[in-house]
Amino acid sequence: MPVSKLGDLSRCAVHTQTNKPWTLAECIAGYKSIGVNAISVWRHVFEPMGAQEAGRMLRDAGMNVPALVRGGFFPAKDKLARQAAIDINRVCIDEAREIGAEMAVLVVGAVAGQALEDGRKQVAEGIAEILDHAQAANVKLAIEPLHPMYAADKSCINRMAEARAVCELLPHPMLGIAVDIYHVWWDPDLQAEIAWAGKNGKLFGFHVCDWRADTRHLLTDRGLMGDGCIDLRTIRGWVEDAGFKGYNEVEVFSEQYWAMDQREYLQLIRRAYLEHV
Amino acid sequence: MPVSKLGDLSRCAVHTQTNKPWTLAECIAGYKSIGVNAISVWRHVFEPMGAQEAGRMLRDAGMNVPALVRGGFFPAKDKLARQAAIDINRVCIDEAREIGAEMAVLVVGAVAGQALEDGRKQVAEGIAEILDHAQAANVKLAIEPLHPMYAADKSCINRMAEARAVCELLPHPMLGIAVDIYHVWWDPDLQAEIAWAGKNGKLFGFHVCDWRADTRHLLTDRGLMGDGCIDLRTIRGWVEDAGFKGYNEVEVFSEQYWAMDQREYLQLIRRAYLEHV
Repeated sequence: MPVSKLGDLSRCAVHTQTNKPWTLAECIAGYKSIGVNAISVWRHVFEPMGAQEAGRMLRDAGMNVPALVRGGFFPAKDKLARQAAIDINRVCIDEAREIGAEMAVLVVGAVAGQALEDGRKQVAEGIAEILDHAQAANVKLAIEPLHPMYAADKSCINRMAEARAVCELLPHPMLGIAVDIYHVWWDPDLQAEIAWAGKNGKLFGFHVCDWRADTRHLLTDRGLMGDGCIDLRTIRGWVEDAGFKGYNEVEVFSEQYWAMDQREYLQLIRRAYLEHV
Repeated sequence: MPVSKLGDLSRCAVHTQTNKPWTLAECIAGYKSIGVNAISVWRHVFEPMGAQEAGRMLRDAGMNVPALVRGGFFPAKDKLARQAAIDINRVCIDEAREIGAEMAVLVVGAVAGQALEDGRKQVAEGIAEILDHAQAANVKLAIEPLHPMYAADKSCINRMAEARAVCELLPHPMLGIAVDIYHVWWDPDLQAEIAWAGKNGKLFGFHVCDWRADTRHLLTDRGLMGDGCIDLRTIRGWVEDAGFKGYNEVEVFSEQYWAMDQREYLQLIRRAYLEHV
């Protein structure tokens, strides 16, 4: 069945990194000004005031917080560094609780030169160590598969299939997957993997943006929805067919859009969301 | 069993595009000067003299030619354009025969905005139309899976699995796969897929370079072997275990190396090949 347009912004969330030039206060005010009442918060934006104060600001503004971004980065060549990563992830979980986030997104990490298979083992070992802490804090952990072009140093989990493998190895209601279309749109198994995740209670997050056919930079040239070639509405259909009822989180890293007046940019985001998600 | 270093350059081939600033004559002379007797030829380098004359130059110099690069680009939105692509691929096959190439590499193509699945159907339809021509010319056709970061407009076949699917759909001794590590090194199924290809007579080509962890450009920042994070020797072991006896083809696109004196660069290639392949 064809998926219809979203009539409003009630299920829209925006990642603070989408508006990188802005402070947390500016993001909150900006998103509210266009009728968006949900925000996913990157850790560095609450560094100036701390997670507790950030939580107060977010609650006072009536903002829902699907995700804290981001924990993860578990693999490392020595044991001490892997333990440090686990400790940092516990801090992330505490911060997520303090800002009222439903989940912490995990960008799992990778070490250039280490076999990706070994990295994935270390990821599973790291996540196993923090699941109890996540449970106690009532914060979900969402593994985000990252595009294979980030396999060298950012993520040894590059498809839904590898995220599923970790979920199967560590069956726990607090562990699931965040689907970011930028990373997985090309995967021939995407529809089947989304269906699996939905059926098994693992579909925690859904991030939207677009893939520009003439991508100019590996990190900071994402497109706004409609700028690129991703059939976003079909994928949203798969996600909804799988039972997902959460936010459509707008996560765009773009030097081009960061250079704009951010209030004008918000109008583009609003229009792109209503037109293309 | 650990794979040992290659003792010499007898199985080394170099792609002309690796030394983009050079003409075909300069490539031939350069490669011979370091003891490389095999060359994969990009079409544009023989445009000035034509394929027949290029074939004469290559034979006179005693060069082996694993591959002509490249045919493919089958998908298109209208039927006329798809027919034109088929016609061009027949020309590629004729040229491959004229330059004495064992195979034509197929970069299969993609249309931004078209479903990748539809693209793959058009690829299979296109290849089906040229198999007889390839057979008559005694030129193999090697599907090269391209990295998912090229899925928007260069290739709707992004893993070995999708190349295998086409080989299974069109069982023909002249159709197989070229494994370029730059594109597939991250794939958890790589070893199994290489084994399948070897067992089924589909392992036609093996291209080497490296993936720089801090890749600066999507197209023209490949690393020379040893510059990056790919465990090249392990992958060569998989390829050889699968029965591959062809050339290790050095294919590096790099603004950095193209800016060098190309004779000095050849010394780097020689050293990188002996040290890291």
